[in-house]
Amino acid sequence: MKNPQLNKNGELQHLLGIDGLPKSIINHILDTASSFVSIGERELKKVPLMHGKSVFNLFFENSTRTRTTFEIAAKRLSADVINLNIAASSASKGESLLDTIDNLAAMHADMFVVRHATSGAPFLLAQHLNDTKQHHVHVVNAGDGRHEHPTQGLLDMYTIRHYKKDFSNLTVAIVGDVLHSRVARSDIHALTTLGAAEVRVIGPRTLLPGGLEQMGVRVFTNMNEGLKGVDVVIMLRLQNERMNGALLPSTQEYFKQYGLTPERLALAKPDAIVMHPGPMNRGVEIDSAVADGPQAVILSQVTFGIAVRMAVMSIVSGSNA
Amino acid sequence: MKNPQLNKNGELQHLLGIDGLPKSIINHILDTASSFVSIGERELKKVPLMHGKSVFNLFFENSTRTRTTFEIAAKRLSADVINLNIAASSASKGESLLDTIDNLAAMHADMFVVRHATSGAPFLLAQHLNDTKQHHVHVVNAGDGRHEHPTQGLLDMYTIRHYKKDFSNLTVAIVGDVLHSRVARSDIHALTTLGAAEVRVIGPRTLLPGGLEQMGVRVFTNMNEGLKGVDVVIMLRLQNERMNGALLPSTQEYFKQYGLTPERLALAKPDAIVMHPGPMNRGVEIDSAVADGPQAVILSQVTFGIAVRMAVMSIVSGSNA
Amino acid sequence: MKNPQLNKNGELQHLLGIDGLPKSIINHILDTASSFVSIGERELKKVPLMHGKSVFNLFFENSTRTRTTFEIAAKRLSADVINLNIAASSASKGESLLDTIDNLAAMHADMFVVRHATSGAPFLLAQHLNDTKQHHVHVVNAGDGRHEHPTQGLLDMYTIRHYKKDFSNLTVAIVGDVLHSRVARSDIHALTTLGAAEVRVIGPRTLLPGGLEQMGVRVFTNMNEGLKGVDVVIMLRLQNERMNGALLPSTQEYFKQYGLTPERLALAKPDAIVMHPGPMNRGVEIDSAVADGPQAVILSQVTFGIAVRMAVMSIVSGSNA
Repeated sequence: MKNPQLNKNGELQHLLGIDGLPKSIINHILDTASSFVSIGERELKKVPLMHGKSVFNLFFENSTRTRTTFEIAAKRLSADVINLNIAASSASKGESLLDTIDNLAAMHADMFVVRHATSGAPFLLAQHLNDTKQHHVHVVNAGDGRHEHPTQGLLDMYTIRHYKKDFSNLTVAIVGDVLHSRVARSDIHALTTLGAAEVRVIGPRTLLPGGLEQMGVRVFTNMNEGLKGVDVVIMLRLQNERMNGALLPSTQEYFKQYGLTPERLALAKPDAIVMHPGPMNRGVEIDSAVADGPQAVILSQVTFGIAVRMAVMSIVSGSNA
Repeated sequence: MKNPQLNKNGELQHLLGIDGLPKSIINHILDTASSFVSIGERELKKVPLMHGKSVFNLFFENSTRTRTTFEIAAKRLSADVINLNIAASSASKGESLLDTIDNLAAMHADMFVVRHATSGAPFLLAQHLNDTKQHHVHVVNAGDGRHEHPTQGLLDMYTIRHYKKDFSNLTVAIVGDVLHSRVARSDIHALTTLGAAEVRVIGPRTLLPGGLEQMGVRVFTNMNEGLKGVDVVIMLRLQNERMNGALLPSTQEYFKQYGLTPERLALAKPDAIVMHPGPMNRGVEIDSAVADGPQAVILSQVTFGIAVRMAVMSIVSGSNA
Repeated sequence: MKNPQLNKNGELQHLLGIDGLPKSIINHILDTASSFVSIGERELKKVPLMHGKSVFNLFFENSTRTRTTFEIAAKRLSADVINLNIAASSASKGESLLDTIDNLAAMHADMFVVRHATSGAPFLLAQHLNDTKQHHVHVVNAGDGRHEHPTQGLLDMYTIRHYKKDFSNLTVAIVGDVLHSRVARSDIHALTTLGAAEVRVIGPRTLLPGGLEQMGVRVFTNMNEGLKGVDVVIMLRLQNERMNGALLPSTQEYFKQYGLTPERLALAKPDAIVMHPGPMNRGVEIDSAVADGPQAVILSQVTFGIAVRMAVMSIVSGSNA
């Protein structure tokens, strides 16, 4: 099936995932974002690019943090933002998802920012909107199941490019619960597309999915080995719900084997940067000395994240069917 | 008691119900709405008619869908919108409803959009605001108990007028749970005021209120008979909570007797339109083949609904005491 | 420890409490507020003072009423407002409070309006922002534990000044559950700073904290004695959760001893005004005849409250580190 995120001219009409996104489009988003970074620092933080447009935050899965970043990005583009907690809404009244979507589209929505617990839900919505010729609505995936979290992947690339300039010489390690991480999946696709020299994944075997090698990734279960000589360390959040299950013995045990401490970080290159998508579990996947240390660029990720989301929203809303 | 929705010059100061609304005012709202329909299709979907005004969505009963339509309408008029989920708020702190209202009015509110489970609540609020000379606040009823849902009634009239031009030759059938439906009540008042040739109501005896004939309505319990030769079919939503009670045997049985299927729709005029206020229960009150078929104008209702709400809000906020 | 609410030039950088606020700053806020009072009465209720700024309502403790007043104030200053119900958010994902704050600050927030159940939480946040040189973010305390509710204190002062002009001859009585009241604490600090002739506190011994005399306050447990000859009566809300506990026998008993009735109010000066921060418990701490009587200025407090919050927000956001 054709990826519905690109229109017939190859322009970005929806952002559904980084998988399948050409390098040129990723670079266009990152270049556009860099013009927005400075806006955040001005007294007047708004541009009129989406003035009069209606952005709907459709969060079928609750995430205040991510919703907030999209809300700020949209408001700084001068759009009107409507927040819908769909979980608590019509879905519970027995209406089908597509009926809900058609209804909102009929209100002349311009954009749906979609977070959903089911992998592929934003893809399904975009496909439906295209099939029914509701081309005025653009879908941005804000995280779907274990599939992708493309704006997080893009802001991670922005951050790496900001600190390291060129991808072609970089070794990047992604550490932790890769199995359940849509961030990891988006990062891997982005890094391989942008031509990173080496992408590594580090984690316990129970938290690593199959098929990583086919994605062009080197797999490590020993953290000390995996960190050797890397330029970038991307730590993943360990979700609490994993800890008491069969997948992990305990958080203390996890920290002992995969927590990023200053000693472990010393195995990476001296100028290696440390990233984390947040929210952090200090003392579980990351030591506070690292989280607050000079190599951490975690808060820069947040700042760049607003600019990247502004770039994505303005690019897709400017495209045609 | 005098209807508080009209001021001493007969202008619309509040919108509380369609009952008692003169034909001239209904037509003024529909005419105003038609100028707003085109705004939704423009790149820049905003007009400055309510710039600097504060609209409060007071939803004592939760309804994300309806709240969203008013929020969009207000934002496209450039108003500031404040959403209050009053159910979860001061009401629970033992404050009286009128104290809550006086407090919000004292914040220089311009409009209260009120949804309440109790019939007559918006009427009570408007009366109180008039009595206490808080004339700067306008009340719009967004659905009260089983009483009225006037903006839904108006958008239904807009839709019928759009497709059928003239009311005087029309036969309109309203089908389903009329007993619990504020939409049905608003539609009946609107249709009789606008001079529809014949208004029919179709439903099981347990879901029809008394006194329908006195409202100028023909009552049918047999759907096939009721649909014969009609120009417009307005399907009502069957609320889930009715199904397991004493009023109805089962949803399957209901669908068999009152579900709108293509076969049944064929009994109506060939160019009959099918309407539904949403959210739909496919397979309960309406067959998917009809809901998605060429005669359904259900999504047009949604689109027109934004324009009609913009019209109502701009008209009442422009009136004086 | 230095109070972090004033910068090195003695300007108001954060508003954390009235304790420690110089008289000149209180007067500056009240003078600024008076220019905003008229804005609320205009057709166009907005000024562009905070256009393009991002105000975050961080309500760790739910309060729809207070949140609404800040939301309106910010929107009338043309700021973008983002409401975060933090209780239901990242806090529950194990992230530390300071990490949450740093994250939001990294999104280029301009202001945090903070409500928190813990006394001192806004102070802690402001200290942290100053320590980490995140000087672009200003903190406004919207009520912290039993500590302070400074904007309520300031709007109370605005109201008194409006009706009584000069503080130096005034006797003010604060009545009720002073022990649990952050409003009482802010009012006492403000009144003593502004030079009120006499500040009285009236309540049952179980609801009076120690150390009141050291704050320059006269304590009464007999309401009739305490009300004699006062110019201003500030009634406090009796929180429902106190009533069934060991602190009070019953609400009827409380009303008999400390409820403000017309008879009791007659003991005050004939032109005494009656204030209440809301929401009121009619028949518990205040009789309806008083609440709705000619001496009550309770709704004026609400109106002035918006102007005072606009003043505070515009003043702190205009200050530098």
